[in-house]
Amino acid sequence: MRTVKVPLGKRSYLIKIGEGLLAQLGPECGQLGLGRRCAVITDSQVGRRYAAAALKSLKAAGFDPLVVTFPAGEAQKNLRNVQACYDQLAKHRLERKSFVVALGGGVVGDLAGFVASTYLRGIPFVQVPTTLLAQVDSSVGGKVGVNLKAGKNLVGAFHQPRLVLCDLATLDSLPRREYRAGLAEVIKYGIIWDAHLFRGLEMQMHRLLRRDPALLALVVARSCEIKASVVGQDETESGLRAILNFGHTIGHAIEAVSRYGRFLHGEAISIGQVAAARLSEELMGLSTQHVTRIRSLFHAAGLPVRLNASPALQRRLLDAMRLDKKVSGGVIQFVLARKIGSVEHGCQVPAAALKRALSELNR
Amino acid sequence: MRTVKVPLGKRSYLIKIGEGLLAQLGPECGQLGLGRRCAVITDSQVGRRYAAAALKSLKAAGFDPLVVTFPAGEAQKNLRNVQACYDQLAKHRLERKSFVVALGGGVVGDLAGFVASTYLRGIPFVQVPTTLLAQVDSSVGGKVGVNLKAGKNLVGAFHQPRLVLCDLATLDSLPRREYRAGLAEVIKYGIIWDAHLFRGLEMQMHRLLRRDPALLALVVARSCEIKASVVGQDETESGLRAILNFGHTIGHAIEAVSRYGRFLHGEAISIGQVAAARLSEELMGLSTQHVTRIRSLFHAAGLPVRLNASPALQRRLLDAMRLDKKVSGGVIQFVLARKIGSVEHGCQVPAAALKRALSELNR
Repeated sequence: MRTVKVPLGKRSYLIKIGEGLLAQLGPECGQLGLGRRCAVITDSQVGRRYAAAALKSLKAAGFDPLVVTFPAGEAQKNLRNVQACYDQLAKHRLERKSFVVALGGGVVGDLAGFVASTYLRGIPFVQVPTTLLAQVDSSVGGKVGVNLKAGKNLVGAFHQPRLVLCDLATLDSLPRREYRAGLAEVIKYGIIWDAHLFRGLEMQMHRLLRRDPALLALVVARSCEIKASVVGQDETESGLRAILNFGHTIGHAIEAVSRYGRFLHGEAISIGQVAAARLSEELMGLSTQHVTRIRSLFHAAGLPVRLNASPALQRRLLDAMRLDKKVSGGVIQFVLARKIGSVEHGCQVPAAALKRALSELNR
Repeated sequence: MRTVKVPLGKRSYLIKIGEGLLAQLGPECGQLGLGRRCAVITDSQVGRRYAAAALKSLKAAGFDPLVVTFPAGEAQKNLRNVQACYDQLAKHRLERKSFVVALGGGVVGDLAGFVASTYLRGIPFVQVPTTLLAQVDSSVGGKVGVNLKAGKNLVGAFHQPRLVLCDLATLDSLPRREYRAGLAEVIKYGIIWDAHLFRGLEMQMHRLLRRDPALLALVVARSCEIKASVVGQDETESGLRAILNFGHTIGHAIEAVSRYGRFLHGEAISIGQVAAARLSEELMGLSTQHVTRIRSLFHAAGLPVRLNASPALQRRLLDAMRLDKKVSGGVIQFVLARKIGSVEHGCQVPAAALKRALSELNR
């Protein structure tokens, strides 16, 4: 088992990474000093596969768990399902020391975390991410929330989990498309922080696509280390943490205009990162060679790198970006790269350059 | 104008109290370093009377305000109206530096504050309380939230306002019943903190009921001072702050079983405080004389001090209390008084004593 610490003073917590950790959920929660009652929030797909094991482990450790299930899919990350969770928690009489276990991918973690952040003005929660994307990104750092029709993650809170338990065995059952979507965030860490990781991914992508266990453990742990380091320096995104949004402004807009249906989050930010690399070339002097390497690595990971964006779609993408949380005074802030492994945040992008980058996605 | 500071480090803010302050809303917000766009969230009743003045002042100071109105009443403090606010804020493109103005009573402040605490993971907000209850209590301290069907304030957050602007002139138009409901919290400050205030209220209740402006200014400021002092020592209710809940456990249950329709909050906690005084007599040695003075002062303020509680209703009240946020390990925690001006929190109350106190409310 590998352990990564997220250093946040009194709110510090551990990320534990290993094979078969789901069976340890009960004993692990037992070390956190929480109340007996808890709610395992999951979705219909993950619940079918893993809820029984989670329940068994929690019960064996003396907890009194309830399972709350909502339908799978990004479109379900809405306030209607939040309300349904609240009602179940109240019915099961969860109290301030009770806790929530988020069992599933990013959608489950974000929604269940938001429920935990607001039920009784905040109760503890534990993340048990079961997708690669959730293990390397969304389960760490305390950003929780849901979507509005107007945009992704427009409602939310900062609420740190008390523990993140990454069971690598749950990745075995992940559909190939979802696994690859998770790689989009792994590649991102290489671009924003660690040229060595990026180079390693270029060389070992075939092994990673085969889900080689030893390599996977290494890659998940390194990704969590980078995220923990960034979050530890800037918990609430007053500065540095913004670099984690590389490719996300355009990516979120792609998700919003397609109503969260066509693309997985990882696929949308793959396209978004390719566009951000092109913007970086124009505005920050990122070398053409690095732009090509970035595009090639996403392609090698089986991720989309282009978008058939008609002029009408491009206009809708621009409109959606203006609603992005990172907008300030009407100006959209971008994260752009100087080279692989080094980015800057708070970059202002002229509208014309942005339009060019979007239209170039057609190629 | 009187000014009270709520001392919370970087989150410190001022409460300003005076006649005609609503006209100063724009200039006052202008001093806070916020963005141009803002949303005045109000209810149908308060909006009709005061939204125009708020808008005028904000526009004159260079802001770009939107008004969001929802129907008046405690039953409206729900997630459906929260969702409607989010949708309006997104449509008006409020950004992270944009802000919310909560213009109204406790329901508006709690709901608008919750919207501000979660929209884009939290944006600034300003409280403009227009009822006595909101001015002396709910607008100060950062507790925001909404009700579930299962209970009051079961969903929420801690989110401190950037400024509280108490325009005493808005109290002139307050219906008599609502004004009196606010006095229930004022009397509470006397019981939990300040025997001198309690004595003053006993002697001057007739003047206070006439809404004597000089006395009212004094009473609002003293109430805010006490609340600021308590909140400054314990922002998130890990201890001391619980004393503000004197009479509230029973009061909230009364509101819940009557579905927030029959009693105003102040009326419910008037009954709740009388019951808590009786419990204090049995369990903490509060003198019979002090119990009588407490009951008499609520009565003199025109507030209800009894409840026709059938055995069936008493059972429902007990059930509702078990859902209270202050329950821990199934044990209900009470705030009880040793004497007027001095209380203790975290008191465990035997079920039999609680049942006796409830049945005595029939007298």
